[in-house]
Order: sequence, then C-alpha cells, then structure tokens
Amino acid sequence: MRTYIAATTISPSGTGVAFTRDPATGDKGLFGEFLTNAQGEDVVAGVRTPMHISEMEQKFPEAFAQFVEVCKTLEDHYRDMQDMEFTVEHGKLYMLQTRNGKRTAQAALKIACDLVDEGMRTEEEAVLMIDPRNLDTLLHPQFDAKELKAATPVGKGLGASPGAACGKVVFTAEDAKAQGGAGEKVVLVRLETSPEDIEGMKAAQGILTVRGGMTSHAAVVARGMGTCCVSGCSDIAMDEENKQFTLAGKTYHEGDYISIDGSTGNIYDGIIPTVDATIAGEFGRVMDWADKYRTLKVRTNADTPADAKKARELGAEGIGLCRTEHMFFEADRIAAFREMICADTVEEREAALDKILPYQQGDFEKLYEALEGNPVTIRFLDPPLHEFVPTEEADIEALAKAQGKSVEDIKALIASLHEFNPMMGHRGCRLAVTYPEIAKMQTKAVIRAAINVKKAHPDWTLVPEIMIPLVGDIKELKYVKKFVVETADAEIAAAGADLKYEVGTMIEIPRAALTADEIATEADFFCFGTNDLTQMTFGFSRDDAGKFLDAYYDAKIFENDPFAKLDQTGVGKLMDMAIKLGKPVNPALHIGICGEHGGDPTSVEFCHKIGLDYVSCSPFRVPIARLAAAQAAISCKG
Amino acid sequence: MRTYIAATTISPSGTGVAFTRDPATGDKGLFGEFLTNAQGEDVVAGVRTPMHISEMEQKFPEAFAQFVEVCKTLEDHYRDMQDMEFTVEHGKLYMLQTRNGKRTAQAALKIACDLVDEGMRTEEEAVLMIDPRNLDTLLHPQFDAKELKAATPVGKGLGASPGAACGKVVFTAEDAKAQGGAGEKVVLVRLETSPEDIEGMKAAQGILTVRGGMTSHAAVVARGMGTCCVSGCSDIAMDEENKQFTLAGKTYHEGDYISIDGSTGNIYDGIIPTVDATIAGEFGRVMDWADKYRTLKVRTNADTPADAKKARELGAEGIGLCRTEHMFFEADRIAAFREMICADTVEEREAALDKILPYQQGDFEKLYEALEGNPVTIRFLDPPLHEFVPTEEADIEALAKAQGKSVEDIKALIASLHEFNPMMGHRGCRLAVTYPEIAKMQTKAVIRAAINVKKAHPDWTLVPEIMIPLVGDIKELKYVKKFVVETADAEIAAAGADLKYEVGTMIEIPRAALTADEIATEADFFCFGTNDLTQMTFGFSRDDAGKFLDAYYDAKIFENDPFAKLDQTGVGKLMDMAIKLGKPVNPALHIGICGEHGGDPTSVEFCHKIGLDYVSCSPFRVPIARLAAAQAAISCKG
Repeated sequence: MRTYIAATTISPSGTGVAFTRDPATGDKGLFGEFLTNAQGEDVVAGVRTPMHISEMEQKFPEAFAQFVEVCKTLEDHYRDMQDMEFTVEHGKLYMLQTRNGKRTAQAALKIACDLVDEGMRTEEEAVLMIDPRNLDTLLHPQFDAKELKAATPVGKGLGASPGAACGKVVFTAEDAKAQGGAGEKVVLVRLETSPEDIEGMKAAQGILTVRGGMTSHAAVVARGMGTCCVSGCSDIAMDEENKQFTLAGKTYHEGDYISIDGSTGNIYDGIIPTVDATIAGEFGRVMDWADKYRTLKVRTNADTPADAKKARELGAEGIGLCRTEHMFFEADRIAAFREMICADTVEEREAALDKILPYQQGDFEKLYEALEGNPVTIRFLDPPLHEFVPTEEADIEALAKAQGKSVEDIKALIASLHEFNPMMGHRGCRLAVTYPEIAKMQTKAVIRAAINVKKAHPDWTLVPEIMIPLVGDIKELKYVKKFVVETADAEIAAAGADLKYEVGTMIEIPRAALTADEIATEADFFCFGTNDLTQMTFGFSRDDAGKFLDAYYDAKIFENDPFAKLDQTGVGKLMDMAIKLGKPVNPALHIGICGEHGGDPTSVEFCHKIGLDYVSCSPFRVPIARLAAAQAAISCKG
Repeated sequence: MRTYIAATTISPSGTGVAFTRDPATGDKGLFGEFLTNAQGEDVVAGVRTPMHISEMEQKFPEAFAQFVEVCKTLEDHYRDMQDMEFTVEHGKLYMLQTRNGKRTAQAALKIACDLVDEGMRTEEEAVLMIDPRNLDTLLHPQFDAKELKAATPVGKGLGASPGAACGKVVFTAEDAKAQGGAGEKVVLVRLETSPEDIEGMKAAQGILTVRGGMTSHAAVVARGMGTCCVSGCSDIAMDEENKQFTLAGKTYHEGDYISIDGSTGNIYDGIIPTVDATIAGEFGRVMDWADKYRTLKVRTNADTPADAKKARELGAEGIGLCRTEHMFFEADRIAAFREMICADTVEEREAALDKILPYQQGDFEKLYEALEGNPVTIRFLDPPLHEFVPTEEADIEALAKAQGKSVEDIKALIASLHEFNPMMGHRGCRLAVTYPEIAKMQTKAVIRAAINVKKAHPDWTLVPEIMIPLVGDIKELKYVKKFVVETADAEIAAAGADLKYEVGTMIEIPRAALTADEIATEADFFCFGTNDLTQMTFGFSRDDAGKFLDAYYDAKIFENDPFAKLDQTGVGKLMDMAIKLGKPVNPALHIGICGEHGGDPTSVEFCHKIGLDYVSCSPFRVPIARLAAAQAAISCKG
C-alpha cells in the first residue's frame, strides 16, 4: 500500500492515488482511494480509512471534474493505464505523479485489448505490453480467491512449480497412481522424488517434498508436467513407514486433505477449492496477435499423448523433444529393459529389446496421432543404464530369479554400472555406440509407428525426426546414423511404404558446437540441449550447484540461475557459433532449442536474434514462448 | 626379424640385410647379417644361421668392396643411417632396397651427433631426427639388459608408467612409507590406489595394481611422479587382509622380491637389478641444441622439492603447476584440515587453517629454494572437500572425538559433502568463494614464504604466481582476486618487504575460454588445464570414459586418447580462441599449459603454433617437451 503524503510537508484538504483502469481486472473507469480533510486538519496515513475515489466527487466536485479530465489527457498521452498520485488544496487539484500502472496478468490482457479497440495501440504494441512471465499464473489451476482469503498457511516450502492443488495426502507413487487413477484428487508427499515416482507424480494434483530445491527432481519434473509442486519444506517431520507426517503440530495421515500453492510455496490444512485455466477471451485474442507477428515456431517437450494434447491446446506446433527414457520405466517394460541390461550377448539383448518394441511403437503411434501431422522429434535413449537397475533388495532378488542368476551376480553387475560422474559418463549416443541394438529397436519403433499412422491419415505430413543425443564428434554421429538409416530404410522397404525421415542431433556438448561445421554435414537438424550445454560450459552439475550457487548470488557473481535464464555470454556464444558454422555447410538444416530455456522470455528473444527456427518448452510454457517470440520479432523489426 | 628373399623367385649365391650404423648403439660401421650359398643351393630363411655382415668379405670380396662403396653413397645421399636389403648372384651385387633405419633412442642420439660432427647434418636437422617419444625410455631406471634376458615374466599388466623397479613387496601405503623411508627398495602392491596412498607411492620404487587402466589413479599419479607402474594385472589373486597375493601359482608374502617393468607391463619373480638414467653425452648435446632453437619455455608440474629438483636437473625452467592439495594429505596437516571442514563458524575454520599455515609456508619455501629464483606457479586448493574426509570407521570415530561431536554428526557432515558429479561440483575457486579463509591462508603462506626466501637470496628474481583454478566467469575471478590481493598486500606491508606477485587463472572451463577477453582484464596469466578442459569440452569424465572408449577405438571414432594427445579440433579451438581473445586485451598476459598434454610431442607442437609462452609437464617429460618445442620452432621457421 502506498503511503499518503506526510502532513508535515503540506496540509492538503485531500489526497489520493488512482488508476485509470482497474489494476486487478482491467475494467475501464477510475479506481483508487481518496483521503479527505475537508476540515483543514492534517491528513495522516492510517488515521482514517480512505474512501473510494468516486466519492471525491461529492467532496470536491470541481477538482474531481478536472481530475477526470486530467486522467483522460494522461492516458491518451501515455497510451496506457495510469497510476497517479494527487492532492487537493483549498479545492484546487495538484497532480503529484503519474506512471504506467502495475496490473495483474488478467488486467494486462484486457487493457491491451481495450487499447487496441479504442484505437490507442496497434496490435504489435499491445503484444509488447504484456510481460510473458506473468502469463504463468493464468495457465494453472488457482485457488478460489474468496476461499483462499479465509485460509491460513500451516507451513511454507519453495514455490517450485506454479498452480494450486488440493487433495488427499498419499505417501507413495503407487498410492498416487492407484487413487489418482480411480478419480481421487491426491497430493503426493515425499521426502524427495526419484525417476521411479514419475507415474505417481503424473497422477497427483500436486507434489510436496521435504527435501530439495528449485532444481530438485520433483521441481524440474513437476514444472515439465505443469503440475503444482512445493519443494523443500523442511518443517515437515516425515514418518514414511507409518504413512504420516507432522507439520505445525498436527499429524497428517493418508487420506487427510491438504492444499498447496506452487507459486507461493504455502501449505494449507484441509480443502481449498481450485478453478481451472483456459486460453479464451482477451488471452486468446492476444495469443492470436502473437502468432500473427512471430517468426519463431514454438514446439513442446512432451513424452506422452496427454502432455502433447495439452501443449497443442496451448498452441504448440510440434514436439521438439520427446524423451524416450520415461517410457522404459513403465511397469510393463522395466522388466524387459533390466533383462536387456543383464544380457550377456547381443542376441540376448536383442531378444529383451524385442519385448519392448511393440510398446515403444505404440507410444510413438499415440504421439503421432496427438500431433495430427505436426513434427515430432524423438530423442533416443539418453540416461546411463544404472538409472534403470533396481535398488531395493526385493527387486534385486526378483531380477536375479528372472535372469536365472545369483543375487551376487546381479549386485556385481549393478556395481559395475557405477559411475564417478554419471552426467559425464556412459550415456547418450555413447550407449548407441556400445549397444547399437538399443538404437536399432528405437528406430524400428519410430518408423513402424509413422508408417501405421500415415496409413490411417494419408493427408498428414509425417516426417519422423530422430534425434541422437550427446554427440561430440562428427564420427560419432556418422557411426550411429549409419545403422539408424540402415534399419529405417529396411523397415520402409519391407513395408513398401513411402516415408521420409530425418536424423539430427542434440547440440549439448561444447565440442559439438565448436565443430558444428563438421557435424552439419551429417545432421538434418540441430537441437540445442541447453540444460547439458550449460552444465558443460560452466563446468558444474545442476544436481550439485545448489551447494554454492547461493554464495554466488550473495557475492553478486551470478544474477540469475543459468539453468533458468540462458547465459548469452558463454553458452549463447557457443550456440551462435554453432549456427554460424552449421548453416552455410547445410542450408537445409533446421535448428531448435529444447532446454528449459526454451520457455524463458529473455532466452526466447535471444533464440530469435541468433536465428533459431523454433523453441521447444514444457506444455505450460508454450503460451509464454509464443508471446516472447512475437515480442522478439516485433522489437527486432522496429 | 626380416624374412630373407624366397628361393623360388631367384637363386642367389648370397643375400643379406645391413645397417650403415649399429641400430642399437649408433656406433659407426656396417652391422647386419649375411646368408651365403656359395655352392649354388637355394637360400631358404631359417635353414642356416646367418653370419655377421663382415664375414661376407671373405666369401665375396669384390661384391663386399662394392657394397661398402654403395653404403657410403646411400648414407651420403640420404644423410642418415641406412637399412638395406641386397643379394649377390654369381658374385654380382644387387641392391634390393634401402631406407632410413629404425634405431633405439640411444642410437638415435649418437647418430644425430655423429652426423653433425661429420658435417652431414646441421644442428637443427639433428634435432629434427630424434623422435621425442623415444626419450621416455632413457629417463627412467632400466633393468640391466643381461639380467633381463635371463628372466621370464610371471605375469603381465598394463605398462602404465615407464621405468623398471625391483624391491620387496609391501601391501599398504604405510608400510611403503615406513620401509621406503628406512632405505628399503619396495614395490607397493594394491588392488587400486587412492589419494590417501600418495605418501606410500612416493616412497616406493614401483607400483603394481590389480585393477585400473591407463588413466586410473595409480597410473596418472605414477606418471606424474615418474615412478614405474604396472596397473590392472587381473591375474593377481589378492589377499590384502593376510598381506599376500598369488600369481602364476606362487604366493607372494610381504618382503618377497619382485621386479616390474612399467614400459612392457611385465612382472618378474625375484630380483632384476636396475640401472639409473642421466642426461649426459650425446643426450646432453642434443638437449643443448634443443634449448638453443626452441622459443617455447618448458616448466614442470611439481608439488615437492624433490620433484622440483629432479625436474630442474632435466631442464625445467620453472614450475607451471604446483598442486597444493597433496600437501593437505600429509599426516601433520590432515587432522587440522578435517577440523576446518567440520568447523561451524568462520572463526573455527580460521583457527584450524592457522595450524596448517606454517606447514604450507614451509612447503613453499622449500619449493622456492629448489627453483633458485625461477618462476613458481602455485594453484590454490582444487578438489572437493569430500576427498579429505575419513572413510574408515575408526578414523571417523577419532575425528568425532577430536571435534567433540557425535559420530552421527560427523557422518551426517560427510554425507552432506556427497556430490552426484564431483568433477563438476563444489571445487576449485568455488571453494574460495564459499570459504575465502582457505584462499587467504594460502595467500599468506605464498607471500610469507617468498619474502623469507628472498631475504636469504636477494639476487633471485622471485615473483610468486598465484593461480586460481576452475574460473568460468570474470566476476568469479574478480571476487577471489580481491581478497587474495588484500591479504597479499597486507602481508607485504606488514613485512616492510618489496615483493611483486601475480594472480592468474587456469583456463579449464569452456566458458573461461569463450570469455577470455573479459577474464584477461583481471588475470596476469592464463594456464590451460587441458585435463579438465578436455573433460568438459567432450562432456565425459576421465574416470568413467574407460567404459566406452574401447568401443570408440574399435569403431574408429577416436584414434587417440584425448587425455593423452590434445584434441586440436575441439579443445585446441577453445585454446586458440582464448589466446586470440585474451592477448589483445592484456598484452602482458603470459600463457601456458599444465595438463598432461604439456608433455606430449604433437600437443607441444600445437602449443608452439598457437603462441603459448610455456608448456608445463611432469618432471620426466621435461626433456621430451624441450625437444618437441625445438622441433616445432625449427619446423615452423623452415
């Protein structure tokens, strides 16, 4: 709340603040507060309750009429909603200050549309008036405003993924999946999450963790899913064994209701109803203008038909990154994948992979269906194999039994997969070099799925984009591409089909950017994986940087988290270099970005400037990217 | 051995191979073998024992006289020792082939000197005739050649660090240190080594490990020390508990003699005497010529006065990298350092570091003394703190007791230091940002040591070079440099001394190379840490790459180990970029390299070409670097 003018300096008969439109809703008309002193007494902040600005008319009709006039003049001049301070002295109006007013996302959209309709702003100008970051709040379920006012938080964590969630407490991914699948609204409460929790996280309305920061597994995955998440609430005393936790003196059991706010990090006891978000009305109009003026395409990072469908609703023009690893964690495949890892021969590996092939093909078919002929980039298996092996004794025993091996053998195998620096270990295309059969199986799945879907939809353009991760040397890409192409061509020939496909690469290793002129000779497309590229360029791992990044912010060494906002000076230089080296060698090369930066407005602007063809981001950031892309195009033109 | 001409094609009366100088020693005169058939019978390889070439004179005096003539003509023409094949048919000489002959390192040096003395070659040409890689064999103790002939290997591992060693088997670093310190020659046999074994490794003549490849801890450290090492001999059945191992059916106990060859990887039972190496005679002459023609300076990576002294004997012109972390592992400091890690407050940390300060100062004083006024670059603490905490239960208990904390507290602290990717974690200058007191203590030690040594040797130029590791951003360097300079200036003022010093940085993070124009504004020097720079640029860790590098060699994706031979295309591009960005901004900037590549001949040539001021390598690679630098200078000039 603004402080009113101190009485010691002047002795006005009235003073106030006002907006030319409602900063909460954007509605037209005067909004604000007025504090009067018709008796000539001092006006001191807090001593009286200010009245609504309109009531000023009764007290000082002349000054008010003049004020209305001035408001119009100011708004016409600045062509935007004004936030003004003024005073009235002996009936005479004094304007003290005016500026463009702050407003909610909803109000910003309405005001922009109204200004266009009133002929005060062009569509391009209106697009530039909206801060893309604010759209985030419109894209997730929110608490009902009235109910929220009546509630008091019982705890606070980090607002790790925006939105509001309300549901029954569950303590395991299995319970979340079972109850969520049965239509219950649940909030998954965990010490921290791991890849094995993905299914449960998907089924939950919200995720609450005791440990972990803004880049913890829970936070990153939740943002990717657009699911509300509060992380790192260390006040929670967790008792996983008995499925209960204590917070603010109350013990919560499975089935108790809680509500969490992923924007503020607040945790509430009991039920606070939520309301859903849609792109319609003014939001829709502004998005249409954004699409009209932007040149950068916007795709989405999505691994499931549900995510893909959501992203399409939010305006995504394709999938820029489909991670295939999550597909291997599902219950019906993980056993076969572990069998593959335990295999002693190529034949055994192929036999295990053959079991996964139909599932994988089905996954891809559903994705193609959801995308309706829009491009889909499928990244081949990326994480190191040790992420897939069991950690629980019972699971290890089960695997040993299934493999006809001893528990010791299985444990020795798991130990042999240990890596000192897994992020820089045996992963990405290195897996395809050592185990070509994995990439061959994935190629078959991609091509068979495309052929099937094309049969059902002959009018769709369907050109699968196969993306090889973690390439650092042209010879690496050449080697892997060779058997991908052999496998794909054999599939197409066997089906008697007519299918084009592309083979491209992630640019996420500094050396790939440095040698992009070589790599472009073999790649149909580049996609900047700026998460890994940031890690390698800075030489720190996202999982470990939490230990010193706070000290870096305190020392003002870093102003932003380089994993959230693209480091244009270093990482951006490598990207620019890669484009300048790659394009002349292969003018048909299309280039995108699929790191988390693809949904960050300033990073999107940079991507536009250096000449990317598209950005790809999580579904709920698609509208933000669309708007940021339009702003970049309009700004660069102007 | 060469195959003699097959009798089915021609039927000579004699055939042979000969060298114009001895390929083993370089001695002048005809060396070779002759197989005669004066009776006109077929000459078949292996049927008769060839005679010495000189005996040919008795059988075919005319042909021999002509052969001697031809040898002279050929050698004069090619101005190098010739390796020839010839035949004699009805008394007539036929020359079949000639080429420059292969020779031992010793012979190469003698031949080069002789050719200069004979006026056939210039000094520059002589320098170009020696393959620097071959010098390695001359720089380490070797087995007595006669004794070696009589011995049969009982096992074989990887020749991980050249040289020969003979001594009593010991199984722990402590035993190696105790017995080695007492003047015994010992060979340390371990499953694998870890940083805690350093002291024992230093005290041993040789190191033999059961596990680990060419880049294992044992291999890398041994190469650094110039100590003979055979790694990864998996045939050894180790029984550490009972201090014994079994190999080739024999069980070896502590105190039994073994001999190991770090060039071939051979392991021998019992004693094979070794002979030491020196740079003298022809080796010395060639090295003098190398020094005359090279422009690149050669420094050494040395952490101890002994290493520094050895490197000086081998021609090092300074220390390019003194790692300070090994100093913290010594028994008299590790307790204080662990105390520092366990400290709860800055004051407690400072108190613990104060205990280390005098030791550290003493270390530096001894180094300055050993270097006699030549430059010394001291790198501040680099590894993550978890490398220093105890792992054994008893050590943890001792630490808890010393700290007045519970074992659980200490274990929790150790657990909190765990990192997912330690190589990309909380290390290097990141430690200096979070714990400035460590860098301040090291600054005090450097400056006080320099002031003291300068007092004793006023004629020496003594400009300490303080090197900040792992810098990725100019603000990082600025932040750390600020308190380094404050501390140093305060020390100098307090001592009333007149001392100049430099503060520079490692360039080992890709982003540092990419932003070298910014970093050069704050750095007095750059030193390329190409071990880490290679890891980050390729995105794989040296510790983990072993799992897939073999597949990369098989697939011909890589031809060389990028950690041994500098990747000029990618890593080299970053280096070249850093120099081109940095030098114009700060023309006084001096630039070196201190990765293992500093001792690799082709990498040294590259360093010369891109304009480095010096290379720094392990002591035993200094002569190799000197020669390679001379060859680069001569080749580039010519």
